Amino acid sequence: MNASNGKVPMPTLERLANYLRYLLDLEQERVETISSAEVEQQTGINAAQFRKDLSYFGEFGKPGVGYNVAELQSRIAHILKLDQEQRVLLVGAGNLGSALVGYPGLKEHRFNLVAVFDNNYSKIGRKLWDLEILDLGRLKEVNAVLRARMGILAVPRVAAQSVAEGLVDAGVDSILNFAPLILRVPPHVVVRNVSFVQELAVLSYHLSSEPPQHALDAKG
Amino acid sequence: MNASNGKVPMPTLERLANYLRYLLDLEQERVETISSAEVEQQTGINAAQFRKDLSYFGEFGKPGVGYNVAELQSRIAHILKLDQEQRVLLVGAGNLGSALVGYPGLKEHRFNLVAVFDNNYSKIGRKLWDLEILDLGRLKEVNAVLRARMGILAVPRVAAQSVAEGLVDAGVDSILNFAPLILRVPPHVVVRNVSFVQELAVLSYHLSSEPPQHALDAKG
Repeated sequence: MNASNGKVPMPTLERLANYLRYLLDLEQERVETISSAEVEQQTGINAAQFRKDLSYFGEFGKPGVGYNVAELQSRIAHILKLDQEQRVLLVGAGNLGSALVGYPGLKEHRFNLVAVFDNNYSKIGRKLWDLEILDLGRLKEVNAVLRARMGILAVPRVAAQSVAEGLVDAGVDSILNFAPLILRVPPHVVVRNVSFVQELAVLSYHLSSEPPQHALDAKG
Repeated sequence: MNASNGKVPMPTLERLANYLRYLLDLEQERVETISSAEVEQQTGINAAQFRKDLSYFGEFGKPGVGYNVAELQSRIAHILKLDQEQRVLLVGAGNLGSALVGYPGLKEHRFNLVAVFDNNYSKIGRKLWDLEILDLGRLKEVNAVLRARMGILAVPRVAAQSVAEGLVDAGVDSILNFAPLILRVPPHVVVRNVSFVQELAVLSYHLSSEPPQHALDAKG
């Protein structure tokens, strides 16, 4: 299954996660109510777009009053299944894996990285933050107990396809893939790809041929 | 400026970068010609979608013959401005920064990470791979010489806005942001956000409430 299937447009789902981040911040600042105009002002996301994104999931907010921050936060968390712990396996204990394990946002959104695997014998048995790095060969055995359904692939390109197959064989049906290749997975498995090169390529496309004036100013 | 502005749809641009990756692989395998049906079979991207994506940029391929791999690769590289070196600044010499500097795909696509900055005095002066970590305070001075227009923000959330302003002040007008917040930038600056939490949240949304059968099989 491609992650863009289903009735809700993918950009809407992506924005929901951003709204959630923003609402968590508002809660911390003890803001109780917001209007879609304030959302637009503070996030740059169009107020009509915000209302449309929410409309896929029912009725939200009260005309003339706005949205209750705590309620909206908890409803979006529920839609994204982030109101429950999601156990996640990580394969690849390199720099990227290390950055992911140490990323404070994961716990805040109830993603629980429960195990880290690598096939490098100089890493197995060592710690990545507070997790012991396990032998990749134990993936299925370990996940028969942990029963995580999400996996993060932070391995080199050449290893990615076989590790993905190992994750699926171990019961994982959602994969976040950082390796720059198209994974072949069974139809029930959802893959999201993060490609640093792709992101930079889209930025590169938007570079104008002339640098902006203030960049020239910086020359002298 | 939002990165989704402009005539070409953002998903098309994102797929172009994927086609380029795929074509570079075909070139290495000495494949000379491909059809859109083969593209679909090998990448999972619909043949009609592939042809439509290319149609934004002129005429490609020959009916009954297909696409010349080398020509298509070089034309897509040109569209994405990846046929020329793009200098990139990195701010943040932590695990994520380290993963980015060591990422082999960057050089392959002619992204040249020319300088790394951090504000942590225990890191400044040390090496991140082959680059000396520079004092963040020198951003503008150093980029007056290097004249990079792309920047990568791999810093904690609390630091991201002020570092983004520093990058813009130093002449950067394209920012790849890994910090989970919405950056406020002048209209001429394009930002792409990569949020690990957002990616996982979209996967989480797609998790079915029931684990797939084969995962249950793995229990015994």
